[in-house]
Amino acid sequence: MRGAIMYAPGDVRVENRADPRIEAPTDAVVRLSATCVCGSDLWPYRGIQPMDGPAPMGHEYVGIVEEVGAEVTSVRPGQFVVGSFWASDNTCEICRAGYQSGCVHRVPMGSLGSQAEFLRVPLADGTLVATPEVPDADLVPSYLAASDVLGTGWFAAVAAEAGPGKTVAVVGDGAVGLLGVLAARQLGAERIIAMSRHESRQKLAVEFGATDIVAERGDAGIAAIKDLTNGLGAHSVIEAVGTQESMMQAIRSTRAGGHVGYVGVTHDVSLPGMEMFFSLVHLHGGPAPVRRFLPDLMELIGNRSIDPGRVFDLSLPLDQAAEGYRAMDERRAIKTLLTL
Amino acid sequence: MRGAIMYAPGDVRVENRADPRIEAPTDAVVRLSATCVCGSDLWPYRGIQPMDGPAPMGHEYVGIVEEVGAEVTSVRPGQFVVGSFWASDNTCEICRAGYQSGCVHRVPMGSLGSQAEFLRVPLADGTLVATPEVPDADLVPSYLAASDVLGTGWFAAVAAEAGPGKTVAVVGDGAVGLLGVLAARQLGAERIIAMSRHESRQKLAVEFGATDIVAERGDAGIAAIKDLTNGLGAHSVIEAVGTQESMMQAIRSTRAGGHVGYVGVTHDVSLPGMEMFFSLVHLHGGPAPVRRFLPDLMELIGNRSIDPGRVFDLSLPLDQAAEGYRAMDERRAIKTLLTL
Repeated sequence: MRGAIMYAPGDVRVENRADPRIEAPTDAVVRLSATCVCGSDLWPYRGIQPMDGPAPMGHEYVGIVEEVGAEVTSVRPGQFVVGSFWASDNTCEICRAGYQSGCVHRVPMGSLGSQAEFLRVPLADGTLVATPEVPDADLVPSYLAASDVLGTGWFAAVAAEAGPGKTVAVVGDGAVGLLGVLAARQLGAERIIAMSRHESRQKLAVEFGATDIVAERGDAGIAAIKDLTNGLGAHSVIEAVGTQESMMQAIRSTRAGGHVGYVGVTHDVSLPGMEMFFSLVHLHGGPAPVRRFLPDLMELIGNRSIDPGRVFDLSLPLDQAAEGYRAMDERRAIKTLLTL
Repeated sequence: MRGAIMYAPGDVRVENRADPRIEAPTDAVVRLSATCVCGSDLWPYRGIQPMDGPAPMGHEYVGIVEEVGAEVTSVRPGQFVVGSFWASDNTCEICRAGYQSGCVHRVPMGSLGSQAEFLRVPLADGTLVATPEVPDADLVPSYLAASDVLGTGWFAAVAAEAGPGKTVAVVGDGAVGLLGVLAARQLGAERIIAMSRHESRQKLAVEFGATDIVAERGDAGIAAIKDLTNGLGAHSVIEAVGTQESMMQAIRSTRAGGHVGYVGVTHDVSLPGMEMFFSLVHLHGGPAPVRRFLPDLMELIGNRSIDPGRVFDLSLPLDQAAEGYRAMDERRAIKTLLTL
């Protein structure tokens, strides 16, 4: 099959890879309908996250079940399925508490590489969720978004305790931040402040439910949030970048007793203890347990209540994955969908 | 009046100070029935927290209202009152959300110095809670504990979401950690693991409700907590020390999706972003909003359901405050009560 491999920072190639096959009786093999490039794929692409030799890329996926192992009972060949970027058994104590990304048997799907024609999915019963029937083609991008970027934005909004009566600020205008806006809206937030200086992203934020836009960053951005909240800060702040500056911007934009939900992968971030202490904020985040939310999100997509697939503003054939990475790296695209 | 003043690290003297008087119509002046030395008083005493010249000391207090300002309506002279170590209006948006230690008008009582015969309490209506009648003398230590150390341990347990079905680990065997044990028990925790290597503190932890004792610290302590929790870590961890080692011990003892409640003042602590991210823990803490819990805690004390005053294992006259500091510094005493 064809699949994307990153050889070094800036060097992504689509090549022939061995076809995946059932290796454990709990595996499924999925023929992908679409896949995509994640903001987190840009960390190694930019050389910020070290690489250990060439690696298959991608961890987001939707498709048709091709084959299942002998012990798989919840999905069958021919079904359209969505899975999280972590494979999880969904039965352990951690999964049952809603933290499938911390499953005691978890497998990072990025290690298997979903930017390809086929994908082996471990722990298929725990990981995959099937739609009632194969969906219309125009819904595929939204289902694909549910595999990570929607689920991650949703988790951030839940971690930030977005809800009725709350003012939510969103730090980061990438796909996750934008879908954090959508999630906050769905969760009933009263006011949603998107922090973005890019017109196209501001526009999508407003369409997803943002009530206010703040273009400033850093101290000026924090001051703008305070101005909008009686000097107190937002109740809920979504952090969807993962830098020192963005984390501190999120924490400092939150009122005492408020909640920060952070899902940007916190490379080289160090949180100062005394400031955290006196901030009185709640801090929660990490790799999103997308599987927790997947059934509900897929229902909202299936009945066309939400349209998260709109974050894909560039669509390319898998063979042009390299250009998909470049476009995101150069911020010409919010998120690249790869067609098959 | 007599009052304790810290001149420099290790140098506490009880001297004559000006009698406090009503300065604002929202003030009260309280004649103290008892006061005490806090673990946090040891930070400047040990030279870890810089001082800016001689300072009156103490922020914990109970006593009889001596005089009130013209606008004070909720307490009156002659009543026995307890207040938090933060004065708060209890009416602002932050207070109403239960974060009185982040009140927009807050005053740190430490700046007024409660290790003295009298104390001016700003924002008396918002800060002080009166008992129905002047309590029996044997209850005074427990009411005094409610002013900070009980309320702080209680906040830590609430922040850690201690409750039915939960395993709670407590890092720190000072008065706050021990009262975190008591709080976790009152909140219905199933299992409470006290981390302590001191026999007298282990004994009090068990009397307060600990079901297990772990004497190891650091990596060995974390391993012991994992051993007791199917390898997963505790659901809830109370951090009541405030060092880099204790914070990391708390975070690493918590399972994915679990909660860390931290109330040790985090001097020179720096939290590593990537480890925080992948830990999937909830982190919440800071200066405890004791006022949120005060009415309930005072009721539990008044009806003798709890006996938090047992953390005072040394009682000295105010004039011997210096010895009270020394005994705590040298860990000869858990907590020193100062009589008047």
